[in-house]
Amino acid sequence: MRIDGRLSNQLRKIIITPNVSEYAEGSVIVEFGKTKVLCTATYEAQVPSWLKGTGSGWVTAEYGMLPRATHTRVKRDKNMSSGRTQEISRLIGRSLRSCVNLKKLNEKQIIVDCDVLHADGGTRTASITGGFVALALCFKKLLDVSEIKEMPLTNYVSAVSVGLHNNNPLLDLNYDEDSTIGTDMNFVMTNAGEFIELQGTAEHQPFNRKDLNLMLDMAEKGCRDLFEIQSQIIGHAYPLQLK
Amino acid sequence: MRIDGRLSNQLRKIIITPNVSEYAEGSVIVEFGKTKVLCTATYEAQVPSWLKGTGSGWVTAEYGMLPRATHTRVKRDKNMSSGRTQEISRLIGRSLRSCVNLKKLNEKQIIVDCDVLHADGGTRTASITGGFVALALCFKKLLDVSEIKEMPLTNYVSAVSVGLHNNNPLLDLNYDEDSTIGTDMNFVMTNAGEFIELQGTAEHQPFNRKDLNLMLDMAEKGCRDLFEIQSQIIGHAYPLQLK
Amino acid sequence: MRIDGRLSNQLRKIIITPNVSEYAEGSVIVEFGKTKVLCTATYEAQVPSWLKGTGSGWVTAEYGMLPRATHTRVKRDKNMSSGRTQEISRLIGRSLRSCVNLKKLNEKQIIVDCDVLHADGGTRTASITGGFVALALCFKKLLDVSEIKEMPLTNYVSAVSVGLHNNNPLLDLNYDEDSTIGTDMNFVMTNAGEFIELQGTAEHQPFNRKDLNLMLDMAEKGCRDLFEIQSQIIGHAYPLQLK
Amino acid sequence: MRIDGRLSNQLRKIIITPNVSEYAEGSVIVEFGKTKVLCTATYEAQVPSWLKGTGSGWVTAEYGMLPRATHTRVKRDKNMSSGRTQEISRLIGRSLRSCVNLKKLNEKQIIVDCDVLHADGGTRTASITGGFVALALCFKKLLDVSEIKEMPLTNYVSAVSVGLHNNNPLLDLNYDEDSTIGTDMNFVMTNAGEFIELQGTAEHQPFNRKDLNLMLDMAEKGCRDLFEIQSQIIGHAYPLQLK
Amino acid sequence: MRIDGRLSNQLRKIIITPNVSEYAEGSVIVEFGKTKVLCTATYEAQVPSWLKGTGSGWVTAEYGMLPRATHTRVKRDKNMSSGRTQEISRLIGRSLRSCVNLKKLNEKQIIVDCDVLHADGGTRTASITGGFVALALCFKKLLDVSEIKEMPLTNYVSAVSVGLHNNNPLLDLNYDEDSTIGTDMNFVMTNAGEFIELQGTAEHQPFNRKDLNLMLDMAEKGCRDLFEIQSQIIGHAYPLQLK
Amino acid sequence: MRIDGRLSNQLRKIIITPNVSEYAEGSVIVEFGKTKVLCTATYEAQVPSWLKGTGSGWVTAEYGMLPRATHTRVKRDKNMSSGRTQEISRLIGRSLRSCVNLKKLNEKQIIVDCDVLHADGGTRTASITGGFVALALCFKKLLDVSEIKEMPLTNYVSAVSVGLHNNNPLLDLNYDEDSTIGTDMNFVMTNAGEFIELQGTAEHQPFNRKDLNLMLDMAEKGCRDLFEIQSQIIGHAYPLQLK
Repeated sequence: MRIDGRLSNQLRKIIITPNVSEYAEGSVIVEFGKTKVLCTATYEAQVPSWLKGTGSGWVTAEYGMLPRATHTRVKRDKNMSSGRTQEISRLIGRSLRSCVNLKKLNEKQIIVDCDVLHADGGTRTASITGGFVALALCFKKLLDVSEIKEMPLTNYVSAVSVGLHNNNPLLDLNYDEDSTIGTDMNFVMTNAGEFIELQGTAEHQPFNRKDLNLMLDMAEKGCRDLFEIQSQIIGHAYPLQLK
Repeated sequence: MRIDGRLSNQLRKIIITPNVSEYAEGSVIVEFGKTKVLCTATYEAQVPSWLKGTGSGWVTAEYGMLPRATHTRVKRDKNMSSGRTQEISRLIGRSLRSCVNLKKLNEKQIIVDCDVLHADGGTRTASITGGFVALALCFKKLLDVSEIKEMPLTNYVSAVSVGLHNNNPLLDLNYDEDSTIGTDMNFVMTNAGEFIELQGTAEHQPFNRKDLNLMLDMAEKGCRDLFEIQSQIIGHAYPLQLK
Repeated sequence: MRIDGRLSNQLRKIIITPNVSEYAEGSVIVEFGKTKVLCTATYEAQVPSWLKGTGSGWVTAEYGMLPRATHTRVKRDKNMSSGRTQEISRLIGRSLRSCVNLKKLNEKQIIVDCDVLHADGGTRTASITGGFVALALCFKKLLDVSEIKEMPLTNYVSAVSVGLHNNNPLLDLNYDEDSTIGTDMNFVMTNAGEFIELQGTAEHQPFNRKDLNLMLDMAEKGCRDLFEIQSQIIGHAYPLQLK
Repeated sequence: MRIDGRLSNQLRKIIITPNVSEYAEGSVIVEFGKTKVLCTATYEAQVPSWLKGTGSGWVTAEYGMLPRATHTRVKRDKNMSSGRTQEISRLIGRSLRSCVNLKKLNEKQIIVDCDVLHADGGTRTASITGGFVALALCFKKLLDVSEIKEMPLTNYVSAVSVGLHNNNPLLDLNYDEDSTIGTDMNFVMTNAGEFIELQGTAEHQPFNRKDLNLMLDMAEKGCRDLFEIQSQIIGHAYPLQLK
Repeated sequence: MRIDGRLSNQLRKIIITPNVSEYAEGSVIVEFGKTKVLCTATYEAQVPSWLKGTGSGWVTAEYGMLPRATHTRVKRDKNMSSGRTQEISRLIGRSLRSCVNLKKLNEKQIIVDCDVLHADGGTRTASITGGFVALALCFKKLLDVSEIKEMPLTNYVSAVSVGLHNNNPLLDLNYDEDSTIGTDMNFVMTNAGEFIELQGTAEHQPFNRKDLNLMLDMAEKGCRDLFEIQSQIIGHAYPLQLK
Repeated sequence: MRIDGRLSNQLRKIIITPNVSEYAEGSVIVEFGKTKVLCTATYEAQVPSWLKGTGSGWVTAEYGMLPRATHTRVKRDKNMSSGRTQEISRLIGRSLRSCVNLKKLNEKQIIVDCDVLHADGGTRTASITGGFVALALCFKKLLDVSEIKEMPLTNYVSAVSVGLHNNNPLLDLNYDEDSTIGTDMNFVMTNAGEFIELQGTAEHQPFNRKDLNLMLDMAEKGCRDLFEIQSQIIGHAYPLQLK
């Protein structure tokens, strides 16, 4: 039995509210329990200079955290320049690029901003899961106004964390669990059941292959659940096929 | 008749949603029409170094804007370091300090963060109006847990903008109005009907004293309306007296 | 009777020394009593990128303070990046733009640097008042060498502060007065008697409309006096008409 | 057959040259083929402020790259502030902390600097592998001069990369391999055969669990080989036990 | 015959105006022809942390240039962070420390700010020459108010440049000369005729020992002239003895 | 007799190891005793913007120091932005430009990076001496691949320090000598026996012309020795002629 009464393989309550911004081409507020992230996808006419002339578009992401999204206030400049912030931005960017055919973006760029309004663990997995929906809504809008010809998405992407507590895996850790558990893995998966990113950190409690296999099983379950929730918002525009 | 159908002396729809953060000692989301600002008040055990040993506490504010709160995306570092951002932060800080007896804070500090989630004009007036409520909620909580002995508030504070269109004043400009009008004034007032801050900017259309008097009348009306709305949230803890 | 023996509606001794730089297209040293500011107007062949192709020119300003212009030394980087510095730079820029027909600048830019050599209160009002003269001298020179065809000035601009002491307004506060007075307003006016900027700050002593009217009267008197002094330097090139 | 003639499960030529600095408490130059990293371990009398009074010591790492360590020169400031640099620094720090009993460091700090002199792929795995040896040499020296009472190391740590080429895993990728292969995983392991960090990135080529298992097998083989090489330098001070 | 009609061994017109600041403990405006530098000496109660507890005081300097002190405007941040600015600050600091018995400053610090108001070559030599006078005036004031017991100065310091034109040395180069001459040396000397700093830069025209000897002769002559001028201001407090 | 047993006019053991980088167009590791600097010369297709269209090329240098190149670790950002670092970078750049006919570089740029791996005094003289060899090797390579038509070098350049101890000059100071000696001069010379740069710093012990002449004699001897060592590496490509 977990702190908040969940089963070991149970996600927190996941809510994805679409179209929360009047300006952004795609936007959602995604909630993983008390974790709440505003994701906006912005379409820009210019790619980074190193892509000019290649025909390829680009998708990138920026992660931010409001000063009082956390238990104790964190200074703005510290939040913004920290290694952690940059590391998560890069992770979200790679994850979202993996599901886009960049050639179909024709030297245009999408910037997905993921700003954490309230943090209770899992902000990076919520950002990827919600950022994917914002990206899909953005593409939908660009299709509707004929800025692009075809849907550039190639698959669904979602992300979830799994921890290890007394050799038992726990799905989708909240902050209290995350603080007390030595092993924490984040998984980014496609709806084909494949891995895009896989990051295990066990500074305080190394794990072996048996542990790893248990965590992999649970991650697959969690991502499948998330695909279903994502498809409720974007399924009409980009149907989900579980493979 | 205004773009959005309002009367010239009519505020936009004002919504103040309290207690939106589980961590911040006081918090609201304040909406002035489509403008939406998250205000959190954080209690910190330390005052700035120049106040140490004086017995006085401190109230300060920081204003921020999410990258896609606006029509076109603004880069994070540009948002954060811009002169405009710092100028508004200082304005909010001065306005909120004017209604606090700092001696009653006993060398403690309150930081009010005002982060714009969606911007449609009037972000600074919304921040002051909502920030005041977050501050009051924070003080209420500190009283409840006996961190402070008495309510440090000395009056209500609210803020509103007034523009001048063909010599007619307009209350609480939205973005479209603000962009097309040459004269824009911001007023910060107390419930005693006095001015704390008064900033008129007329780079494109200087105004005379008759214009000014019309705008002053309208500002008084707008701030009175805002006090009523604020008191619906905090009136039980700190009753409103209009003077 | 004021600290320095002035009448309540009396300016400090104002001295504007023109042509103090051999390089700048226009330059003055302006003194408001012991406050001393070097103002240089620089003509540059390029406008900011967002104005390219519009035909319009630009006028901007930068305010600085030497480290020991003040009672206690302020570090250079603190001076330069402070919110106060940026706020005053923006105020000077807006004020000076209000008196220029930017179309006549034909995609060229004027940068007015206002560097405080000695500070005794009123550095921003001295900067605007002196910066206007530097700007006029710069335009005069550009006319002389046919870089521009017509004088782009549309009116005179000057600025003055007014404080409130025991409900009596005081004109042009020096540092000692400014430090002890709760209400401080800055006025930027045209020679037509209209307001361009009006900033009242009363963190420590809110004021009512009667107070405001007294301060407005005094500001009008002070700015008229300043226009006379400005016109002694630039009147031959751009005559003053009081309206 | 690989580009450089290696077998798929063969490391590049690994050379660890100890004691290359006269000043650093521990130091090595580690070479993974043409990749060459200078690792120095510095002993400092102070822990970060958040550890003061806890009794615990700290181990941290900083990763750097000389401007022309790479094919094309990278600017110093870009190298230093990049997200990639900070991300790798954090990875090295976590990896090295995992093998240290921080309590035995008694509020002292070790900083391991890993500066890449020549980069040909695998700079982060070389840094961890070499950084561990520098750390062990540093502890040896501190023991010799009685700055610490007991060896704080709890296990060996090494790191290696594995790529996936046409569904075949390849050990210890060089730059040319890394550039052409879509899936790249980095493994940090202990001599007990457990995982400390595990990072798979497959932006261009997602992988399934069968692929993952092949890569895990190969990583275990590679890390075992590295432990043998590390123990040749530090085995007399801290013997290797393969488990 | 030189551009401005001077003899080869003749200084420009040197004017040192003392006590130009009401706040700084010592201050001068120094003019070397059209070069004009404001030098202020500030007394601070604190030494840098690495001197605390040593009993020694400190003298340091900061050099700055106003944006339009030069023919074309230089951006503030570029001026401030440039290598040239820092290099000159360090040179002035070393030069001024060489004439002070730091032990007599009793863990107090003097900061000499040298801000160039108008630049026509020789700003660093003017800064050292004028900075010395500001420093002496500061010490005089500290003696008068008994902050220090004895005059900490141990000798006079002045500085001058010498160039080489067709194998002929020229004293105290102005900007036009400096721009066209390949060899430029700066000399900082004591009234005992000894060298404190000697910097020759001949990127475009290397020089031999015979050239060097000619330049040394001329520097000695120039510094002697400057000592006489300095002593007219400070001789009553700290008499000059030429050795 | 010196600390390390050398004669007063004896260089430390000088070793220049060429071609240490596979990527840089020219590279050496230069050792002056225990001082060890990695010098790489990078060829870039672009000159700084102010040289575009002039036909001239450019040579510049950047000096860096690894955090633990010194007795106590220095923070990376402090190393990088310090005035000392920028001052030495500028010195190396000027010294290396003095021996290059920039016209023959045809709007291309060479950047010489000098990164100190181990510091025991004389890092700037080692950087210039080694940087010259890296530059020559770079030019040799560019000639071989016909990127340039002629050798752009016009002479050899080397650099050495001389100190003054009890009125006796000492050649090529190591760190211990440098720390205890009040007078320290650096000389940059050509193989024609002329001076390019000459920097004497005697904050703690001014020197007279007799001292200077002794130091000049010794510098000439030291630089001649260094030319011989440089020519052993590059003499086949660019023969040494002592004049």
